[in-house]
Amino acid sequence: MKQRPKIIDRILEGIRESRTFCVVGHIRPDGDCIGSQLGLTLALLNEGKKVWCWNEDIVPAKLAFLDPEKIVQRPRPGMEFDCVIATDAASFERLGKVGDCIGKRKLFINIDHHQSNTRYADINWISAREPSSGEIIFKLLKSANWPITPQIADCLFTAVSTDTGSFQYPSTLPSTYNVAGELVKRGANLAKICDEVYQSYPLSRVRLLKHLYNKFRLTDDDQIAYFWLRKADFTRTGADTSDSEGLIDHIRDIEPVQVACLFEELEPELTRISLRSKNVKVNVNEIAAIFGGGGHKAAAGARIPGSPLSVQRRVISAVKRALNAAQS
Amino acid sequence: MKQRPKIIDRILEGIRESRTFCVVGHIRPDGDCIGSQLGLTLALLNEGKKVWCWNEDIVPAKLAFLDPEKIVQRPRPGMEFDCVIATDAASFERLGKVGDCIGKRKLFINIDHHQSNTRYADINWISAREPSSGEIIFKLLKSANWPITPQIADCLFTAVSTDTGSFQYPSTLPSTYNVAGELVKRGANLAKICDEVYQSYPLSRVRLLKHLYNKFRLTDDDQIAYFWLRKADFTRTGADTSDSEGLIDHIRDIEPVQVACLFEELEPELTRISLRSKNVKVNVNEIAAIFGGGGHKAAAGARIPGSPLSVQRRVISAVKRALNAAQS
Repeated sequence: MKQRPKIIDRILEGIRESRTFCVVGHIRPDGDCIGSQLGLTLALLNEGKKVWCWNEDIVPAKLAFLDPEKIVQRPRPGMEFDCVIATDAASFERLGKVGDCIGKRKLFINIDHHQSNTRYADINWISAREPSSGEIIFKLLKSANWPITPQIADCLFTAVSTDTGSFQYPSTLPSTYNVAGELVKRGANLAKICDEVYQSYPLSRVRLLKHLYNKFRLTDDDQIAYFWLRKADFTRTGADTSDSEGLIDHIRDIEPVQVACLFEELEPELTRISLRSKNVKVNVNEIAAIFGGGGHKAAAGARIPGSPLSVQRRVISAVKRALNAAQS
Repeated sequence: MKQRPKIIDRILEGIRESRTFCVVGHIRPDGDCIGSQLGLTLALLNEGKKVWCWNEDIVPAKLAFLDPEKIVQRPRPGMEFDCVIATDAASFERLGKVGDCIGKRKLFINIDHHQSNTRYADINWISAREPSSGEIIFKLLKSANWPITPQIADCLFTAVSTDTGSFQYPSTLPSTYNVAGELVKRGANLAKICDEVYQSYPLSRVRLLKHLYNKFRLTDDDQIAYFWLRKADFTRTGADTSDSEGLIDHIRDIEPVQVACLFEELEPELTRISLRSKNVKVNVNEIAAIFGGGGHKAAAGARIPGSPLSVQRRVISAVKRALNAAQS
């Protein structure tokens, strides 16, 4: 049997010695963030802890089923916590406004799987080989011998499934499938989860997809695909930012495409980019880093100031250079 | 440890006593059929057997990577086999023309996971609880202690993954995830498989999707979604019928939609319809039956003669009646 990392024992000791908790995650939370936050929160509640679970942004509609009791709540201003735990948040800044309100804490724990994590807490468990933070939380719960209830299993299955693209990303490990199998065995409601997460898109998102299929562009011998989402596109379609999650996969999945890029207008002079690579030799984490962003080899992003056209030119140029380097 | 079913020993005994094999599958083969056929064939070849692997239809383009050495070949006419093994074929008729040419055999084995299997062979291993035939073949290879090479792992992973909708269908078992994990551990090339099977849509299909998002219609309080594919749409987009596979899921997965319908022009006066239901109270098999078709509760189809407009009116009316009945 493999020896378990000492970091787990340090975290469990910190948790044991704490009574009040705040479990936080990154802005614009995805399935892995919400699933990890809620899974850990439920486990701590089961252990008799007093726990707040908080995120600057609301739980996306398609993940609301994970939180029927509305556990995710803003704590009272100025509250003190024995322990704050951040899940799936690569940097302190990614916590958004939540970061301003967790200053009064005795212990700060950071559990994440992003390579680019800035190790901003007192105890940092960063396991970049893990394809999701949910899988790390699962390991924590197992190490602690805490029960994995069906509700916790729902949360962690959602985390593991969404951050592996339904067990398809090359980052998926043999252990990931075993974790998923154990979660289903422990009562994760596969039919419900997959219906809510993968098979119930609101009409607003369908309108965004229509926009995407009409407006996306291919360049560099169809190796690069990109499209723009402007504020007006959200207004026109009635979509919110949660509807744009995963849109980029639709252009990534085109056969000749090696790198996909989504440009999203945040302000007239501020653009968020998302990058996806299907080419193992093209590391989009490095491309995002040029623009002050980060992420993983196959999926990364950044926020870039400047005029939309200049942002587009600079990003597409950087992608082209990376593709050329990969081919030489 | 669970006792292994006697049927496996009977099959392994039959295989041991045979020297020449023909491994066959159903017409219009999918990932589970091709993956199971090839996985079993490669395992038998490794055991020193003489094996033909044959299907009436060609291996679909997106599965061609599983058979780089073109193992799937038509045997010489009139050949005799010690043993014929059918995988994933629910009935003898589903073997198509292949069925006519495997008459000269000593032993006939039928390995499948369809509930409706007609048990047409000498030995029938029908396990309807298994979500894929690939998972049954995996069990057979494990029981026989035959090596699972990376190439076999590729075939069986493809089978297991495609027949569970990438581990999403409610039929997926805890054991299915464990099998997938073991196959990845034994060398299944996840990146390659998922790229070929799920992330490499040709541009012709992308053009069909653009057509779909621009032309689909909602009716009956957005509970019914439908769209038409005319011959001209295929010509215009350069698509063939394999590109239209799964298109209907894009309108089924819209949140308020209960029933999705695809109308496909076969001839000016002949339409193929495909129906999908997300409502357990709406059985599209019964709706398809009105028009002489059939299928399952949640997925069915029919071919209907008549003018396109009258076909559309009759089908949408039938769907509306079924929805009203479900609500009353």
